[in-house]
Amino acid sequence: MEKAAFPLGEVYGLLEPGPVILLSTAGTARPNIMTLSWHMMVEFEPPLIACVVSNRDYSFGLLEAGGECVINIPSTELADKVVGCGNTSGRKIDKFQHFGLTPVPASLVKAPLIAECYANLECRVFDRDMVEKYGIFILEVVAAWLDTSRKDPRTLHHRGMGKFMVAGETIKLASKMK
Amino acid sequence: MEKAAFPLGEVYGLLEPGPVILLSTAGTARPNIMTLSWHMMVEFEPPLIACVVSNRDYSFGLLEAGGECVINIPSTELADKVVGCGNTSGRKIDKFQHFGLTPVPASLVKAPLIAECYANLECRVFDRDMVEKYGIFILEVVAAWLDTSRKDPRTLHHRGMGKFMVAGETIKLASKMK
Repeated sequence: MEKAAFPLGEVYGLLEPGPVILLSTAGTARPNIMTLSWHMMVEFEPPLIACVVSNRDYSFGLLEAGGECVINIPSTELADKVVGCGNTSGRKIDKFQHFGLTPVPASLVKAPLIAECYANLECRVFDRDMVEKYGIFILEVVAAWLDTSRKDPRTLHHRGMGKFMVAGETIKLASKMK
Repeated sequence: MEKAAFPLGEVYGLLEPGPVILLSTAGTARPNIMTLSWHMMVEFEPPLIACVVSNRDYSFGLLEAGGECVINIPSTELADKVVGCGNTSGRKIDKFQHFGLTPVPASLVKAPLIAECYANLECRVFDRDMVEKYGIFILEVVAAWLDTSRKDPRTLHHRGMGKFMVAGETIKLASKMK
């Protein structure tokens, strides 16, 4: 995979804009992928990310058991696969095989990276305190990878009911906010 | 204010794409505004939203004390004011006055709506369990307002260090995901 290690302190810039992500998990039978939009940054460095995984999702059990996952960020070219992963369950199909996505071994976690995604964040579950009440997992990013050949990848942003906003242009303002 | 009540069950469609928000709070001295990108949906209906407010922010104390806030969603026309609110502190200035933003009384909470924002979500603090550890407040949206005359408002999405992605076109896919 032609991706470069990405500085952990800059991970927030990838996730703060709110892209749809593909969360991959390892499993005893096979790895799985779920489509997810309910995530947010919690800390800059080491990067902590909160995300919601429902206990109705097949990935919930895999994340609970394995304690690891990869957050993969797809761009619009993968729109059909993103929707496909969201409309199906890993209980019934092997999503990597079914949607023609390529699992690549991660460097520090057992869950696979999705090769076709331009960014991959290897994560370990950091805090389970809010899992029972809300399905909120706090994840720590332990390694990050970026396809540096992709200039300005257009992410997808979920509006619900089949509608997605596609990332537009990036502008520069006089902000001092990290 | 010419805004229509917006169905609570559809609020997720406003916030899931990950826009920069302006969080307004009431205060004994004066109301305040902070710029914020670390938020996510937690439940569809009644809508629950998690957001991170640092205890270094002036708004932290106001939110802790008042237990209420409004999530206001700005579009690109307000970019300079959004950045201004992010680069200043309510300890020193009245942000409504300084940036020419208009406070409008909310229907159910003491915090004011920001008139210039196309969407306003009146919120009450629902769960403080993660405040001490991460600054995560779980908010319940109790009333929502939308400027229905604004077709396709272009939201801002923070990338850090002065860079913002501007929302692009909305596409329709075959997704069954709510």
